Amino acid sequence: MNKTTHSPRFELLTIGDELLLGLTANGHLTFIGAELGARGVQLHRNITITDDAEDIADQFRESWSRSDVVLVTGGLGPTCDDRTREAVAVVLGQKLLFDPRIEQHILERFALFGRKMTTNNLKQAYRFERGEVLANANGTAPGLWVEQDGKVLCMMPGPPNELRPMFTEQVLPRLAKLGLVLETEAYVQLRTAGIGESMLETKLQPIFDRVGSNLGIAFCAHSGHVDCRLSSPGGQMSLAELGAVADECARLLGDDFVTLGGDSLAKVCADLLRSQEKRLAVAETATGGLLSNAFTDICGASKFFSGGCVCYSNDSKMQLLDVPECLLLQHGAVSAESAVAMATGAAEKLGADYALAITGFAGPCGGTNENPVGTIFVALHAPHGVWSRKLSYPGPRTTVKQRAVNAALDWLRRELVRASKGAAMPQNHQNVMQ
Amino acid sequence: MNKTTHSPRFELLTIGDELLLGLTANGHLTFIGAELGARGVQLHRNITITDDAEDIADQFRESWSRSDVVLVTGGLGPTCDDRTREAVAVVLGQKLLFDPRIEQHILERFALFGRKMTTNNLKQAYRFERGEVLANANGTAPGLWVEQDGKVLCMMPGPPNELRPMFTEQVLPRLAKLGLVLETEAYVQLRTAGIGESMLETKLQPIFDRVGSNLGIAFCAHSGHVDCRLSSPGGQMSLAELGAVADECARLLGDDFVTLGGDSLAKVCADLLRSQEKRLAVAETATGGLLSNAFTDICGASKFFSGGCVCYSNDSKMQLLDVPECLLLQHGAVSAESAVAMATGAAEKLGADYALAITGFAGPCGGTNENPVGTIFVALHAPHGVWSRKLSYPGPRTTVKQRAVNAALDWLRRELVRASKGAAMPQNHQNVMQ
Repeated sequence: MNKTTHSPRFELLTIGDELLLGLTANGHLTFIGAELGARGVQLHRNITITDDAEDIADQFRESWSRSDVVLVTGGLGPTCDDRTREAVAVVLGQKLLFDPRIEQHILERFALFGRKMTTNNLKQAYRFERGEVLANANGTAPGLWVEQDGKVLCMMPGPPNELRPMFTEQVLPRLAKLGLVLETEAYVQLRTAGIGESMLETKLQPIFDRVGSNLGIAFCAHSGHVDCRLSSPGGQMSLAELGAVADECARLLGDDFVTLGGDSLAKVCADLLRSQEKRLAVAETATGGLLSNAFTDICGASKFFSGGCVCYSNDSKMQLLDVPECLLLQHGAVSAESAVAMATGAAEKLGADYALAITGFAGPCGGTNENPVGTIFVALHAPHGVWSRKLSYPGPRTTVKQRAVNAALDWLRRELVRASKGAAMPQNHQNVMQ
Repeated sequence: MNKTTHSPRFELLTIGDELLLGLTANGHLTFIGAELGARGVQLHRNITITDDAEDIADQFRESWSRSDVVLVTGGLGPTCDDRTREAVAVVLGQKLLFDPRIEQHILERFALFGRKMTTNNLKQAYRFERGEVLANANGTAPGLWVEQDGKVLCMMPGPPNELRPMFTEQVLPRLAKLGLVLETEAYVQLRTAGIGESMLETKLQPIFDRVGSNLGIAFCAHSGHVDCRLSSPGGQMSLAELGAVADECARLLGDDFVTLGGDSLAKVCADLLRSQEKRLAVAETATGGLLSNAFTDICGASKFFSGGCVCYSNDSKMQLLDVPECLLLQHGAVSAESAVAMATGAAEKLGADYALAITGFAGPCGGTNENPVGTIFVALHAPHGVWSRKLSYPGPRTTVKQRAVNAALDWLRRELVRASKGAAMPQNHQNVMQ
């Protein structure tokens, strides 16, 4: 049974006025939550507090008293609003020691980048007297590790490119060695598209009812896809048993089931394209590069992705994609006809088998009576034909863009799945609302 | 003096296993934190907890006891893991009432989208017996508002496109009416680029020292730019006085100062382009659409943005941008020469005055001995010439992409600022490391 013998309680303290002021997103919660979740531990709580030393001390005292592991991020940097180290030392009853090895590391780091070290950086050279130092290969502030009173405290620097490798390479192995996290994944995630959260639950409920209360279920809706995570909070179900439940759910959902795990829609499309040895091109107006970016976030994208055009003017549609001027003048740039011409133009210009095109009004400005803000035309060019769909999304610009991209990706995914089964695309694809 | 008479204590409870499992980012903290910050209130604490009813009740009881305003997000949806409403009602000592008007709204919403309502949606039709309902124009779950014991509780639905308009249009005005937030902005933010956090503090410290301890200072580093927010926590400094300090800082920083406020680097470039009546085009490989997307996130981008090409193959560079094949063969696609050819090709093909090109190895695969993973070439085409720079970034693929985009944007910004002053670009732009 992949289960730790007790359920250790993890709390994450994320420190920084910049988080509470909304200057920066709390990516640490997302990252650490996912990493721990994959190791069989659900974070019990995440508390974000200010840089105020008294608040830090109060909150750390409270979290330390009720938890087995306290993870702290931020507040280790050189600038004046970083007071974490000192506040925590008081609660632990430990002194801070100046560590010349850390100083040396800081000096070397500044030399590497040819920058002059300012003296405020030396604040980062202090560690707890009864604690260890976690090396930071990507920054100046080291991580700090303390085992005391049968508990673990781990303090990590705030910049994500410093924290993430430190957490994966040093913190997780240390936690695993202490039996506080598992070595292997301990949940199964179903990713779906084209089905709403409540409908998804209603469809799957009969399966969940049959399996019974040992099954933990969590839904999470994104812009255009919904995840359902199956776990066994009490540890009574093995990973294989969870997998069997997930397989049953997937069969029931048919083409609305995307994948097991966390692969993006673009990644699923990429795998299908590569296995079928097909290439893809894209052309965008309204989504302005976001569709291309979804594919180029995938390492090795050049193996299946020929390229994309962001055509923000009629001229660029004619120049880059050979869209006929008369078509743009007659139907307008935001039309089914233009979307189809863009898709075929992208496929031909870039030598691709498949092409997606998106044109529309992402808002808040623009739009016409016939095609108000939120109107999006998506076209799919495939080896056996080209189709378009008219979609309509409410919401702010970035939401409209993201939903349009996800709709396009999901359409391509369904078509590639169909092609992989050797089935032809149905004829009535035009004007399907999603 | 723009200052509430007392400093009300705000806590934000974000509820959802999906947050603690890292399935979704805690965008509510970012959004609500920024909105409150702009109204003179710094969130005192944000606590993210599981969907577990007992945890919700415990945490709500604690937050309610020590706060003036408790904002709760999530846990109002239709699916089985939403137990927030019930848990909070117990602590408030209130009953939940079924409200037929909410039921009617839910039914209308489903009818609008032509979907069938599943019965689990009716959970959302309950409200507190002594409380009000906040209409939700973008979803089924209404917000809930309670004034009790001299405190405010406001519960909002989790989906951002439902929460955000509800917060801006209904919650903030109600809070302002009660004197709990200000009507006007109460801080000044300096956005900088091309200068590290510690160097920035060191440079500005003499100004901060002179102004004294009434000044609140918070730094926040992003990928390639650093924000410094000036506020007056005790309310002793007016907005005009803060603005004067910010102006002095801006003068000291010279071209490293980007803007006052929160405009993105792309938005600052866009404003400069529009005021100079110039047009921009971009060409990308490694950043794969992210650079285009930075510009097309701006409403009305077509006024200055001609378009972009994502050229993931040598063929596409030749086809779309007329990059000579012999150049690609001699120097490789990742080279200063190719970057320059891409920039000029984009400017010419898309009829633009300025063009940015980015080519490189974002990793983790790819790279050569000469140009390992993380190597990026940026080229800038301007009316009076074209230049390239070689940059090198450590870190994961998405970080490399974001840093490359920010470096390109900052270079364009500096050049546009220089052009607006009528000054020529210095000659030694090549191979500057940032």
